[in-house]
Amino acid sequence: MGMTDPLILKDIARHLNGKILSGDTNMLITGVSSIQNAGPTEICYYGSTKYAGYLHSTGAGAVIASSPVETSAESVLLVDDAYDGFRRVLHLFKPDRSSGFPEIHPSAVIHSTAELGKNVLIGPSVVVDRDCVVGDNCIIDPGTVLGPGTILGNDCHIHSNVSLLAATSLGSNVIVHSGTVIGSDGFGFVPDAGGEHRKIPQNGNVAIGNHVEIGANCTIDRAVTGSTKIGDHTKLDNLIQVAHNVCIGRGCFIAAQTGIAGSTAVGNGVVFGGQVGVGGHIVINDGAVIAAKSGVTKDVKSGDTVSGNPARSHMETLRLGAAVSRLPKIIELVKKLNAGNTGETGD
Amino acid sequence: MGMTDPLILKDIARHLNGKILSGDTNMLITGVSSIQNAGPTEICYYGSTKYAGYLHSTGAGAVIASSPVETSAESVLLVDDAYDGFRRVLHLFKPDRSSGFPEIHPSAVIHSTAELGKNVLIGPSVVVDRDCVVGDNCIIDPGTVLGPGTILGNDCHIHSNVSLLAATSLGSNVIVHSGTVIGSDGFGFVPDAGGEHRKIPQNGNVAIGNHVEIGANCTIDRAVTGSTKIGDHTKLDNLIQVAHNVCIGRGCFIAAQTGIAGSTAVGNGVVFGGQVGVGGHIVINDGAVIAAKSGVTKDVKSGDTVSGNPARSHMETLRLGAAVSRLPKIIELVKKLNAGNTGETGD
Amino acid sequence: MGMTDPLILKDIARHLNGKILSGDTNMLITGVSSIQNAGPTEICYYGSTKYAGYLHSTGAGAVIASSPVETSAESVLLVDDAYDGFRRVLHLFKPDRSSGFPEIHPSAVIHSTAELGKNVLIGPSVVVDRDCVVGDNCIIDPGTVLGPGTILGNDCHIHSNVSLLAATSLGSNVIVHSGTVIGSDGFGFVPDAGGEHRKIPQNGNVAIGNHVEIGANCTIDRAVTGSTKIGDHTKLDNLIQVAHNVCIGRGCFIAAQTGIAGSTAVGNGVVFGGQVGVGGHIVINDGAVIAAKSGVTKDVKSGDTVSGNPARSHMETLRLGAAVSRLPKIIELVKKLNAGNTGETGD
Repeated sequence: MGMTDPLILKDIARHLNGKILSGDTNMLITGVSSIQNAGPTEICYYGSTKYAGYLHSTGAGAVIASSPVETSAESVLLVDDAYDGFRRVLHLFKPDRSSGFPEIHPSAVIHSTAELGKNVLIGPSVVVDRDCVVGDNCIIDPGTVLGPGTILGNDCHIHSNVSLLAATSLGSNVIVHSGTVIGSDGFGFVPDAGGEHRKIPQNGNVAIGNHVEIGANCTIDRAVTGSTKIGDHTKLDNLIQVAHNVCIGRGCFIAAQTGIAGSTAVGNGVVFGGQVGVGGHIVINDGAVIAAKSGVTKDVKSGDTVSGNPARSHMETLRLGAAVSRLPKIIELVKKLNAGNTGETGD
Repeated sequence: MGMTDPLILKDIARHLNGKILSGDTNMLITGVSSIQNAGPTEICYYGSTKYAGYLHSTGAGAVIASSPVETSAESVLLVDDAYDGFRRVLHLFKPDRSSGFPEIHPSAVIHSTAELGKNVLIGPSVVVDRDCVVGDNCIIDPGTVLGPGTILGNDCHIHSNVSLLAATSLGSNVIVHSGTVIGSDGFGFVPDAGGEHRKIPQNGNVAIGNHVEIGANCTIDRAVTGSTKIGDHTKLDNLIQVAHNVCIGRGCFIAAQTGIAGSTAVGNGVVFGGQVGVGGHIVINDGAVIAAKSGVTKDVKSGDTVSGNPARSHMETLRLGAAVSRLPKIIELVKKLNAGNTGETGD
Repeated sequence: MGMTDPLILKDIARHLNGKILSGDTNMLITGVSSIQNAGPTEICYYGSTKYAGYLHSTGAGAVIASSPVETSAESVLLVDDAYDGFRRVLHLFKPDRSSGFPEIHPSAVIHSTAELGKNVLIGPSVVVDRDCVVGDNCIIDPGTVLGPGTILGNDCHIHSNVSLLAATSLGSNVIVHSGTVIGSDGFGFVPDAGGEHRKIPQNGNVAIGNHVEIGANCTIDRAVTGSTKIGDHTKLDNLIQVAHNVCIGRGCFIAAQTGIAGSTAVGNGVVFGGQVGVGGHIVINDGAVIAAKSGVTKDVKSGDTVSGNPARSHMETLRLGAAVSRLPKIIELVKKLNAGNTGETGD
């Protein structure tokens, strides 16, 4: 569905500020594909030497590259940054995925006190509760619920079946993917005299900055007091847990299935691999890199790369891993040495 | 939104059964905050020596503490249990997050055979299928689906976009957060002669006790036969997987992203850190503690603390971890010893 | 709810192609249960010697077994494959969980361009967007959203609150459990000159084969170009992440909370334990087995079993684990040897 019109290669080149090194500048390009799968009317990109082997076997009509390359493709389109060229050409061929339910669908339930901006699109079965504010050009897809007092800036896209719970605040240009829950209660209980546990009210909210993207089926809990915060330009993948009172800075990347426990502070530009776990009340400073599956139990310094569980310097993790790999041989050697000394083995 | 009225400190003290040690007993308190962030009209609590440094820098008007403390705050409010005092004062300042759609919204689809108790609130786009029973004072938030034969006790709060599937049974005072699925089919297949797999019907249900709280985007599968069970007063955080025929006891705490495989039995008062994985057909006995990211592959004794993957006694995990940290030096030493004996290194 | 009628044991035997070895062939069987919990009018199965101890204590009226067994149950029903017999008898006693909202509910919002097959059941609050095609006998449960251009084959069952996003394609006999998101954007960004990141359009889709079952609250991202693919007869458990351009073969089993990063290729018949993480651009070949909690960082050969993080041959993981368990004693021995040589310890 939503096929786009073909484009002439020289028009693509103009759009990408690129230069056609070879082939027919009037070549008709019908779409974008990968270097492995592209056909003769498709354009692909070459961005990593890992894929150098495909340069000579690709069936693509044209290849976007940041240096002159030899290739089986008829044309090479030279650009400054091949990956950004790929991004731009994908925009040119972006299929039309717009809903067939434009404007505000009559089945949406919108409270009389809600304020909607200009040019807002609200899909079927959406619920917008009292005192919500929705900025201009926002798109809210079917089945999504905006709890009381939710505030959205301009140009947000909230996909289907999302729950933005009471008092959640989003900046502008925020994307929230389907099934995500923002503003669920934090996990807090206090034991009572009888050994049971009483719920601690979670009076705070979640405050999200501008240009943030949050993946599908994530959970971001509201704060006990104040706000759980996600800074501008930070991007979260799918199935991520952010606990109450976590504060994440600007420009972070967090891969899927990572979890961050309560009150932990993450600086700017921090990168998390997938399935990372971070304990509570920890500080991860600017520019740190947390390798996939790490278990972070103490603060991480600015710019450090850590890995393992418990996480330590990635160099140290590698060093210890290499030592463990050698351990069976070392044990044999120790037993031999001991036998030489005592005539007995070390078992 | 939903700001609460200010309160006089002595009224707060009375409510908490506390004693004001210093300052103006008529001080106006406008809200609750953390010791780091509180302002001059706010109250905070001091519960852990980890935060002792903030006692002298806090801008709070009053601090709740369980012993007399020196602080920059004007007032100290002495209580038996500072954390419980915090809980109580949060209740006093709990903002109004009630929906603007009170009672039963006309867009909710409620089957004619469903029985609804007194004072039930059902939001827009909720679906209540045949033969459901919903107890008194239950709140069912927008977009939630109650499958056929679902039974809720009194005073339950089911948040938005939840799926309680056929024959799910909840006790009273149960909270289920947004996006959670209870009663999905367990993961069971049997290979057929052709190497394909046939689905094993999951005929059972999920039965949840009283005073249980289940986080957002969890999945709790129905049993093959009988019930997958979660006992009274047990609390689950977000994104937790509970497989078919798991039986969890009373008063357990399970942190986010933990997964428990099929037919595993968890006793009473068991505590799980985040991202724990537990294999199938395992018994975890009363009062056990499972550290974050553990991989539990065999039974855990009552009261034991385990960690690591595969999980073992936490003391043993620490002992082995310390030994591994020393391993590179030990290897150097072994090579030196070997060189002394043989003139060769161990590589 | 939905109790089924009792059956006579000899009728069950006929249905299972089994032979009654003992007891009253006219015994009335009211239901199926486990060997531990079955009562005198219930049937259970004995499939693993792990449960041999229950053969003499079971309260079951009849036991399905693949060999003659001694048991406290009155009857033994002998079949070729006990587990498949269990599957069949569960079908006989499958309770009626059908919705009380048959046919197409008037609250469902179905775009005029959508094509619905024969005998389709669409629940309340379902949204079917433009250009969707829904095959014969499909069931779409309440609150589910089918984005523009979604295509379903025949006999699919899409449970409640699912999001199948634009251009998603499903074969026939596909089951998708509640809360799952298929077709969310992949996680792709390119840094710009100012250090910010620009979103890479995700122009592709998700294409799922026949007889696939996908658990609850999973996330399967659409491809950048082309399709993220899941092959015929593959089964996914709950809370699983499949990133953009992942290609999963035929007949794979993936346990809960596993995550597979972008562009990774998984062959046929691959089995994943729970909470596995697989890096991007990796190839896992046919018949491989990935143990629970593994972190896969490089290609896996056909038929290999790997475990650990980073994952290596399971035999090697066991060997290194055993060596580490002995490490504290080895260190003591090395210190003793060193003291004998030098009079000093190795600390």
